[in-house]
Amino acid sequence: MSYFADLISTLFERASSLGKLSGRKQAPIDTLCRELLTSKGEVSGATLAQAVLNSYAASGDADKLAFFFQLRDEFDLDANTAKTALTAYQQNPDKKTYAAFMHAVDAPRLELVRRLNQVSGATAQLVAMRQDLLRLAIDNPEIAIVDHDFKNLFLSWFNRGFLVIRPINWTSQAHILEKIIAYEAVHEIDSWDDLRRRLQPEDCRCFAFFHPSMPDEPLIFVQVALTDAVSNSIQVILSDDRNAISAASATTATFYSISNCQQGLAGISFGNSLIKTVVQTLSRELPDLSVFVTLSPMPGFVSWCVGLNIQLDSPEPDDLRRIAAHYLINAK
Amino acid sequence: MSYFADLISTLFERASSLGKLSGRKQAPIDTLCRELLTSKGEVSGATLAQAVLNSYAASGDADKLAFFFQLRDEFDLDANTAKTALTAYQQNPDKKTYAAFMHAVDAPRLELVRRLNQVSGATAQLVAMRQDLLRLAIDNPEIAIVDHDFKNLFLSWFNRGFLVIRPINWTSQAHILEKIIAYEAVHEIDSWDDLRRRLQPEDCRCFAFFHPSMPDEPLIFVQVALTDAVSNSIQVILSDDRNAISAASATTATFYSISNCQQGLAGISFGNSLIKTVVQTLSRELPDLSVFVTLSPMPGFVSWCVGLNIQLDSPEPDDLRRIAAHYLINAK
Amino acid sequence: MSYFADLISTLFERASSLGKLSGRKQAPIDTLCRELLTSKGEVSGATLAQAVLNSYAASGDADKLAFFFQLRDEFDLDANTAKTALTAYQQNPDKKTYAAFMHAVDAPRLELVRRLNQVSGATAQLVAMRQDLLRLAIDNPEIAIVDHDFKNLFLSWFNRGFLVIRPINWTSQAHILEKIIAYEAVHEIDSWDDLRRRLQPEDCRCFAFFHPSMPDEPLIFVQVALTDAVSNSIQVILSDDRNAISAASATTATFYSISNCQQGLAGISFGNSLIKTVVQTLSRELPDLSVFVTLSPMPGFVSWCVGLNIQLDSPEPDDLRRIAAHYLINAK
Amino acid sequence: MSYFADLISTLFERASSLGKLSGRKQAPIDTLCRELLTSKGEVSGATLAQAVLNSYAASGDADKLAFFFQLRDEFDLDANTAKTALTAYQQNPDKKTYAAFMHAVDAPRLELVRRLNQVSGATAQLVAMRQDLLRLAIDNPEIAIVDHDFKNLFLSWFNRGFLVIRPINWTSQAHILEKIIAYEAVHEIDSWDDLRRRLQPEDCRCFAFFHPSMPDEPLIFVQVALTDAVSNSIQVILSDDRNAISAASATTATFYSISNCQQGLAGISFGNSLIKTVVQTLSRELPDLSVFVTLSPMPGFVSWCVGLNIQLDSPEPDDLRRIAAHYLINAK
Repeated sequence: MSYFADLISTLFERASSLGKLSGRKQAPIDTLCRELLTSKGEVSGATLAQAVLNSYAASGDADKLAFFFQLRDEFDLDANTAKTALTAYQQNPDKKTYAAFMHAVDAPRLELVRRLNQVSGATAQLVAMRQDLLRLAIDNPEIAIVDHDFKNLFLSWFNRGFLVIRPINWTSQAHILEKIIAYEAVHEIDSWDDLRRRLQPEDCRCFAFFHPSMPDEPLIFVQVALTDAVSNSIQVILSDDRNAISAASATTATFYSISNCQQGLAGISFGNSLIKTVVQTLSRELPDLSVFVTLSPMPGFVSWCVGLNIQLDSPEPDDLRRIAAHYLINAK
Repeated sequence: MSYFADLISTLFERASSLGKLSGRKQAPIDTLCRELLTSKGEVSGATLAQAVLNSYAASGDADKLAFFFQLRDEFDLDANTAKTALTAYQQNPDKKTYAAFMHAVDAPRLELVRRLNQVSGATAQLVAMRQDLLRLAIDNPEIAIVDHDFKNLFLSWFNRGFLVIRPINWTSQAHILEKIIAYEAVHEIDSWDDLRRRLQPEDCRCFAFFHPSMPDEPLIFVQVALTDAVSNSIQVILSDDRNAISAASATTATFYSISNCQQGLAGISFGNSLIKTVVQTLSRELPDLSVFVTLSPMPGFVSWCVGLNIQLDSPEPDDLRRIAAHYLINAK
Repeated sequence: MSYFADLISTLFERASSLGKLSGRKQAPIDTLCRELLTSKGEVSGATLAQAVLNSYAASGDADKLAFFFQLRDEFDLDANTAKTALTAYQQNPDKKTYAAFMHAVDAPRLELVRRLNQVSGATAQLVAMRQDLLRLAIDNPEIAIVDHDFKNLFLSWFNRGFLVIRPINWTSQAHILEKIIAYEAVHEIDSWDDLRRRLQPEDCRCFAFFHPSMPDEPLIFVQVALTDAVSNSIQVILSDDRNAISAASATTATFYSISNCQQGLAGISFGNSLIKTVVQTLSRELPDLSVFVTLSPMPGFVSWCVGLNIQLDSPEPDDLRRIAAHYLINAK
Repeated sequence: MSYFADLISTLFERASSLGKLSGRKQAPIDTLCRELLTSKGEVSGATLAQAVLNSYAASGDADKLAFFFQLRDEFDLDANTAKTALTAYQQNPDKKTYAAFMHAVDAPRLELVRRLNQVSGATAQLVAMRQDLLRLAIDNPEIAIVDHDFKNLFLSWFNRGFLVIRPINWTSQAHILEKIIAYEAVHEIDSWDDLRRRLQPEDCRCFAFFHPSMPDEPLIFVQVALTDAVSNSIQVILSDDRNAISAASATTATFYSISNCQQGLAGISFGNSLIKTVVQTLSRELPDLSVFVTLSPMPGFVSWCVGLNIQLDSPEPDDLRRIAAHYLINAK
């Protein structure tokens, strides 16, 4: 081709590529996935991605299971290619051999999920997709291997650096509060009135993590009671008869409930991060706050510790455990 | 340990772990990195991460180079472990062997960078870190292998699904507009007055991609002129003497400039995504818009196409190229 | 006084004037009002204003009534001064005599209320104050004359040009939605579930007017059902069994409920403004909307028309009535 | 008329009243004003208001002057009616006679301006209208009487309770910063670079008042330098060579410039309010701030005091003057 001094090229006609690919939207999901993985540029990628997500959303469990098997088998990495690339890298470790090896060990299903993520609202749908995967893997443990890749992708996407903390209170949006009611895991919330009692008083605080690509879905939230004394009873702390103190006069912050909201993010730990961030946030706002405690019902203590990654039996106690042990010994 | 019915454990004393680890903040960066990689929970991770980033920011090129060599060598993957794990996976591919293999091929430097990202503002600093890496790699090509990992992480973090498009106009914030002036790559902007002439008229549009974790740094932006006829001359389009038309009467949108802002995101392609998103955005707002063209000066045409990933010589033309070719043939 | 080249004068000591006037905060409300009216600059005006509002809020009906009598009598205009000023103006109408006359007919209680308005949150408190005034005036009609001034001030402050329209939907804040439930005047809302049924479906719309100085208090709101046919039955329109249509396919917008929220703004008409603004808003968003109707239960029809300032018996029918009559004749 | 159980009346046809009154939009402005004042409901009020404002905006000084004469003469109050109403009120002061008197002394031009305010953006245009009025009144003092009414309306509309304070800094929007450059009255700002030097450093602060109905137009702004010592020289305070201190270590806040932005709001005092609000704002943010001073160049000292309503010769010194005098005596 030869070109003019100021070259003009038309990138798009008004009839968007969406229209051109309308035929494909009816294609079965496995076909759509293959096309999505082979599409070169991003011109039609969004269309295919949306088509795959729509198809998946309309599927029943049988089709979803088939989809996960396709991810496991057809979009698997090629171990032989990987071995060859690894050997080449071992013999001559440079950028070229490393790149080839890294490419060989990146199962195509990972690239597929990355490409699915490009359309608006996709992240939430992919989290829901993993929720299905975990559920179906109970009776079909062979697909569990695919979850390893979903989980690693989410560990990268939901890195603490990308999470946003937001207070949850009575001025929060109703569609978010509705989820707080639904997801509250420790001390059930019965009604909107009950919710108001938990959020509106000045001695009640609640904070949640959100990811910017899922603005309507809290990932995890924690509830905190501000008191002027340490209490070991949640009934006392939340009692309607309590003398609700002003936030400024609080000396103690009691974290009495923490709830993970997304089953599709199981195994991805946000709890410690959230509690730590809330401690910093409250410390800045209320300089007289000096004690931070968690209140945990005995029955669930062990699993709660697991959920927050609190190691109580580790031979190498971290600061967390040492302080907890010290408190426990003195409290007995 | 035995526990009471309602167990209380103290998570934090007000003297935050920040204070306790103050000694470590003075430690050399290689020590800090080691500790960051071995720290168990996230209690002190943020402190170490901040310390590493501070130390890096205060370093000169020599120390930065040493840091990159540490990433390359000390935090390299172990090829032997990888080979063993791959063999085990090949013999018995299940979730366990797959996980072990995936762990073995994930170079520790990747986990280090993920952990660095946890503190506020870290993402922008890591992008700047890669900018240094690319610069230093010119004279030290041995560290280029580390860039493969940075780039792959960024490909995941800066996935189209996480980018946010924002209009850039005369009501945008000054500290953002300052960057538009600085980053404009095709048709230089001389002054704030010049910038106003490019942004304020009704027939001028500008859009940028942002990543939520770097809200003050545009990643890429495109400038568009709305006209009622196709023109092949940028001088005509931007002329102060032109009859600026109302947006509603425009039939043609000419993309006359596209500028990548982040050298640390080199090789990560945003151009096609941005142009496509802008076409959709303008189409929705201005139903009479029917022609979308790009205007490219001849001298830089080839590199511009490379920058936008427009393949003009591919044996498998995508929609983009077919339309461009068609236009070119007819325009001659 | 002689001054230096660059003169320095200290405006405030850190011990704010709030502290200095603490004694006055305990003064009775009538004393505080006198001081507020005579205070020269604005240095201590805010303090006095806050003190008056606090004192009023803590008062029972007897003290509030006394307060209104003070407004009526002590802060009344002086009719003799007014007459003198009017005569002077009549004889020589210029800016000076006009200003003097205008000042003479501006009862001091008007300036008092303007000065009360300066503190944060005062506007809402003044609206509540008028609500008390209207209530107490039932048994004490002598204070009704004071309401004329309150109403005129509010007519000025709540001018259509200052009102802001906001959609009310399921993403609105809970503390606002709580008021929608409480204020709904035509078709009672039983619960939060009931509210969701009214707000969340795509064929339901709700809009409210707010004043920027009272951001948490809707002034008036209207509920609209989008349908593809005109219906004369609210039960049909709101039925849970209805086929909720997509907004884009709606041809008819039925305004089925309008509720004034602020008793303290009685007699200040927002209804027509709101309905007109909503018609424009919906027309822009949904180009296929061509019919706008209101649905009104027979029993309350007359008072409803009064509330919306729809004159049905006026010898000079406005557009509104002519269209209504035309519709009625044809509908029989 | 008889009505059905559920009555339906059509309020608006899709062809809005705007279309029906298109003929009137071409009517001369005096005709439009008459219609605006006599229009009953609000159905066509907005249309007429917009037409008047458009007509005014397109007028030259001669037509504007004629408009102001119309306001003065045709829309004047009727002094005889006022006298009669006043007499009736004096004889029998009740709500009815008071209302009649108040109505008689409310010149129709006041209601006209209130009705003009109803359309979007009207407030800013009315402020500009008063700017014209003040300008034309220099050579035509007979229209000055009309300004009394404009000023009183604005005193009500721009009541401190309705103003919003916003920080102005380098992250503010460019179209607002452009006005700061233009309006800066004391220490001229030469360029955008100069503006950045005034706004971006940590020891520089700037705050402005806005009215919600004119969000793009600052009313007044003040510039503050944070220092750790009192200085009497603006050159020292703003010097590029100064050691810019951190805000947290500042002990002194020097208000070195205050600029009124709206000539159409002349005579309406915002200065004291703004300074007082800024003192409170800075005190809350920086607890170590203990001294607040203003820095005023000698030449303009007297007029500056007038502008801030600082009475230096009052026989009844307010707190402000006593402190200033005390400081001056000690500083000599």
